[in-house]
Amino acid sequence: MPEIELARRQRLQPAIQALGADAALITSLPNVRYLTGLASSNAALLLPATGATGATGPAAASVLATDSRYEGAARRDAADLELVIERFIEPALARLAAGRRLTRLAFEAQEMTVQRYRDLTAAFPSLELVPLGYAVEQLRMVKDEAEIALLAQACAITSQAVGQVIGSIRPGLTERELATAVERAMADLGAEQPAFETIVASGPNGAIPHHVPSGRPLQAGDLITIDCGARYAGYHADMTRTVALGPLADWQRDIYQLVAAAQQAGIDAAVPGADVGQVDGAARALISQAGHGDHFQHGLGHGVGLEVHEAPIMGYGRTGTLGDRVPITVEPGIYLPGQGGVRIEDTLVVRAAAGTAAPQELLTTTTRELLVL
Amino acid sequence: MPEIELARRQRLQPAIQALGADAALITSLPNVRYLTGLASSNAALLLPATGATGATGPAAASVLATDSRYEGAARRDAADLELVIERFIEPALARLAAGRRLTRLAFEAQEMTVQRYRDLTAAFPSLELVPLGYAVEQLRMVKDEAEIALLAQACAITSQAVGQVIGSIRPGLTERELATAVERAMADLGAEQPAFETIVASGPNGAIPHHVPSGRPLQAGDLITIDCGARYAGYHADMTRTVALGPLADWQRDIYQLVAAAQQAGIDAAVPGADVGQVDGAARALISQAGHGDHFQHGLGHGVGLEVHEAPIMGYGRTGTLGDRVPITVEPGIYLPGQGGVRIEDTLVVRAAAGTAAPQELLTTTTRELLVL
Repeated sequence: MPEIELARRQRLQPAIQALGADAALITSLPNVRYLTGLASSNAALLLPATGATGATGPAAASVLATDSRYEGAARRDAADLELVIERFIEPALARLAAGRRLTRLAFEAQEMTVQRYRDLTAAFPSLELVPLGYAVEQLRMVKDEAEIALLAQACAITSQAVGQVIGSIRPGLTERELATAVERAMADLGAEQPAFETIVASGPNGAIPHHVPSGRPLQAGDLITIDCGARYAGYHADMTRTVALGPLADWQRDIYQLVAAAQQAGIDAAVPGADVGQVDGAARALISQAGHGDHFQHGLGHGVGLEVHEAPIMGYGRTGTLGDRVPITVEPGIYLPGQGGVRIEDTLVVRAAAGTAAPQELLTTTTRELLVL
Repeated sequence: MPEIELARRQRLQPAIQALGADAALITSLPNVRYLTGLASSNAALLLPATGATGATGPAAASVLATDSRYEGAARRDAADLELVIERFIEPALARLAAGRRLTRLAFEAQEMTVQRYRDLTAAFPSLELVPLGYAVEQLRMVKDEAEIALLAQACAITSQAVGQVIGSIRPGLTERELATAVERAMADLGAEQPAFETIVASGPNGAIPHHVPSGRPLQAGDLITIDCGARYAGYHADMTRTVALGPLADWQRDIYQLVAAAQQAGIDAAVPGADVGQVDGAARALISQAGHGDHFQHGLGHGVGLEVHEAPIMGYGRTGTLGDRVPITVEPGIYLPGQGGVRIEDTLVVRAAAGTAAPQELLTTTTRELLVL
């Protein structure tokens, strides 16, 4: 849908103008995809500050550079853009910019390495590079309905896969086997890839938030944390469920109920206009009041979209405001070293109030009741 | 095996000294893993130019920084190093370096972004950062036997998986289904992950070197290119086979034989002391002489190890020399737009002559005969 990407490029132009730049050189691959439609491992976009943002129009139109491997995809997915097929895409666009007498280029300092920056400024001394900042990431934070539909599909696949696999959990199955089963179920349901490496953490391993699935066999009395997501059409789902093999001790039920309550408090606080630090605080307060503040050391959640971690980041001391159509995760946890842990996570979309609808649309739907298998 | 990483750190020290630097700040994650043993998504190493490179010894010892998610793994896998557990690892190490009165730090300009560089130099004006270059990548190019054993295991998994799956190829199976079958077979054989997203390109799609597997059903008369690899203990295999669903046309058999001959010529040229451009040229010459020079637009191969693409890169105009114990891929291809293509790729280790052994040890072993299924 070239007109969607065209509108996105137009929305970025004021940020380029505000820097007094003639154009932006976009090199972050998710940002290039967002602004052009092209998914590629080697692509960059030259986007003028004013004027036409497609291929037609005045001389200073947008130019997409990629290498020959992606030429067909570029002609198909970014048919409205002028195309440069070159192996070294940044020098190619810099040369073109210099030829068009553009002198001041906004660039993505958070993506470009020092080496590439030095090579580029040495080869094209007439160009002045100024940091664009996170202008594209800010635009990407608010999704359009087409993006939300793709994310919802990624979340539906994830929810269904976890629902299916939970039924097969039994003592003796290893963490790695369970992780593989989840990833296969997601693939069978249409995921293009896992959104990230699936986490399965059982028993004492549950105390490690980013545990890598091991050969540990599941056993009676385990809490088992499954953190996974499907990628669908480039959009990343993210969901965590903690289930149990009985019998459970009281401390396990207690921390589960506490995390569940904290998660609900976080979800309830995630409304348009809410400060991200306050959303984090709403969930964190419950955990801290119960004496587990030191056992919840990561942020409450993050945006999801073309990347699995993107703006807004919700954590202690973070600033920023949620808005309408902002998908986020809410994922509090309690981790007791040597004992085990619980994390519960959903992907949801913050929505402006509309009639009686809730200001949060939950996209991941696997039950959050404590399942003792 | 901390002594292996200790020896690697010692081998890096002369490069740091040669820059007149007091220490190196290593931020490339594969390089941190290589030098410390820690696999992490957030870790950095401060390595002094002289003196002890472990945790004990004089004040200027090596320090590994990572965040709390990886504390347990760091204590297990890098037990000989002083450890700093901080969320923001680069400022933490810079503060420590400044406190130790280190003033000149070698840094990895090919990894650090402009934004991080500017933040670091603004916060620690007493530090002078100088590019380390590819000193660690150069060390990593030559593998020790323990690394070669892990890579060999990754390649054995890959070869066995492809061998199994080829038997199931039949008309009607889609590219995506075939790619999934390969990845599942690799996982069942012990791969921790695919080394990269599996490519299956059939019929006309075979003309696209990096084709993403689609819903296209395989059909009679197709050449089918399968490019895949297993990751095992961090090491990446890379292998490509092109098989066929008969009946085949003469042009298909012709380009297959041509690519096979070119690959053998490339393998034969890959001896210790060979220039990488000449190895590329040995294979490319055969393809060019047959009039297909324009249909082979990528390099002949690349190093493999902790990354799937690493030094040495073998391509037209590249320079550098192969040495003993350097694993590489050799992967010529011919791509005919709109018609189809062939690529044949193996991972092998270049070896110094020893008795009657060949100077190349082939690690991927699936047959390279043209299989018409």
